[in-house]
Amino acid sequence: MNKIKRLVIVGGTHGNELTGIYLVKKFERSPQLIQRSSFETCTLLANPKAYEIGKRFVDTDLNRCFQRQDLHNLNLSSYEAQRAKVIYQTYGTKGTLEANLMIDLHSSTSNMGLTIILARQLPYNLQLAAYLTSVNPNVKILYSEPQTLENPYLDSICEFGCSIEVGAVAQGTLNATLFQQTEELIYAILDYVEAYNKETPLRVQDTLMVYQSIRTIDYPRNATGEIQAMIHPRLQFQDYQALHPGEPIFLTFDGEEIVYEGDKVVYPVFINEAAYYEKGIAMFMTLPIEIATI
Amino acid sequence: MNKIKRLVIVGGTHGNELTGIYLVKKFERSPQLIQRSSFETCTLLANPKAYEIGKRFVDTDLNRCFQRQDLHNLNLSSYEAQRAKVIYQTYGTKGTLEANLMIDLHSSTSNMGLTIILARQLPYNLQLAAYLTSVNPNVKILYSEPQTLENPYLDSICEFGCSIEVGAVAQGTLNATLFQQTEELIYAILDYVEAYNKETPLRVQDTLMVYQSIRTIDYPRNATGEIQAMIHPRLQFQDYQALHPGEPIFLTFDGEEIVYEGDKVVYPVFINEAAYYEKGIAMFMTLPIEIATI
Repeated sequence: MNKIKRLVIVGGTHGNELTGIYLVKKFERSPQLIQRSSFETCTLLANPKAYEIGKRFVDTDLNRCFQRQDLHNLNLSSYEAQRAKVIYQTYGTKGTLEANLMIDLHSSTSNMGLTIILARQLPYNLQLAAYLTSVNPNVKILYSEPQTLENPYLDSICEFGCSIEVGAVAQGTLNATLFQQTEELIYAILDYVEAYNKETPLRVQDTLMVYQSIRTIDYPRNATGEIQAMIHPRLQFQDYQALHPGEPIFLTFDGEEIVYEGDKVVYPVFINEAAYYEKGIAMFMTLPIEIATI
Repeated sequence: MNKIKRLVIVGGTHGNELTGIYLVKKFERSPQLIQRSSFETCTLLANPKAYEIGKRFVDTDLNRCFQRQDLHNLNLSSYEAQRAKVIYQTYGTKGTLEANLMIDLHSSTSNMGLTIILARQLPYNLQLAAYLTSVNPNVKILYSEPQTLENPYLDSICEFGCSIEVGAVAQGTLNATLFQQTEELIYAILDYVEAYNKETPLRVQDTLMVYQSIRTIDYPRNATGEIQAMIHPRLQFQDYQALHPGEPIFLTFDGEEIVYEGDKVVYPVFINEAAYYEKGIAMFMTLPIEIATI
């Protein structure tokens, strides 16, 4: 594989996820923290207008704007559609600052801990992910294929893209512990890339435990689309924990339990993510699988 | 004292605080839950447009729009200024549905547990608060005088107003446990009012522990007003716990601790409330005081 020549650290793809935004600000004040000898590191505040108004987005979710057909569709003119084009033309294939690796920093109201989200299973990313789990055993790897025809995520515009999702943290707030843990994770990524570029790759295990998203579950809703139940207290903040058939997942506003009716043990994540109420997602069901990193 | 004739339960004064909004929706579906024989109970979704767009407010914070001079100022025409006038003309003094008691339901990203906020020390409210602490010993009473010339809060338009602040819960999410606990608190209030109206008042203790807000503390900021530090991990979620002089309260983005430099033990609340970043408030410092309820 070719070396990484340029790496981009992105914050604020969602304007109310402050962890990534303040990390990018820190790196912009102190660029020496992220400079390494064998590659260039850039930073990007992806959706500054959304950050300014304290919202996830202005017109539409920027992190769903990167399908290639949309990037080439001149008729799409929302703030985020335009922003996506500019970002793609900068860091994407044949862009003015074409980058090989993009780290997109997100936070969640779900108890995601420190999660690396991969949308593709590329050996380089799997090995990087394996390295991060060896540096911090609390790191989880979530593999989630996009449901759209093309990959709509920002990190898809670079050959090796991944997202970091940290939580639980409320939108519009900073959690110092998660801030520092995310920062450490970024330095570990930079170390890994540097060693790889210098042809002294850091050793990783041969297999990696990955939580593979198998489907999403919506809240119970009435005919007008209004939610009829909440995440059950026993499931709240229990991301990555085993959920057995028959265990409660929702509690209606009248206090009735709704149980998980699947026939196998699953591991829910993104439980009670604020931004997913409107997307019709109460949680992602995942299954842990072991995959080879080489 | 005269009897309570009409009581209003308000949700959604802030559009992204879902607990109160979904409680009001529940009560509107099942009004028998909140009807009592000796008084009328109304419900109000205070800021429906903010709820629709998933934000605290559209133009300005509705819960700062109720100073009498503003309610009578025809030049104030923001969405919330107009909404405030309509609400006041309905439930306020000489309103079409003038109410004696208003319960305004809020939620916080701070670990406020179940807090009753009083802006005035009226015997009726103190006795009601004392009753609620006897029903649920986890209930805390926060006494916070408005800093403005007149009281700008929605609950000030009724003779006996108070707010319920529950947390920690992220904006835009529901926490089932807090939802149910808030619901129980509302029923306890209705029971208390009913008994009082029927001249069989429920017995309360003679004194009440109240956390009195003494001042607010802002985040450290640079010359352009940008925050320079986060809530210290040791203080995060520690609302209502003793903070001693010399103990850390902030952590800068570079990892330096900033300590509390006061000379007496205080009890911070509203620690890391998302909506207060823009108001210049990192926390409220309070002191516990014991006051007579009779």
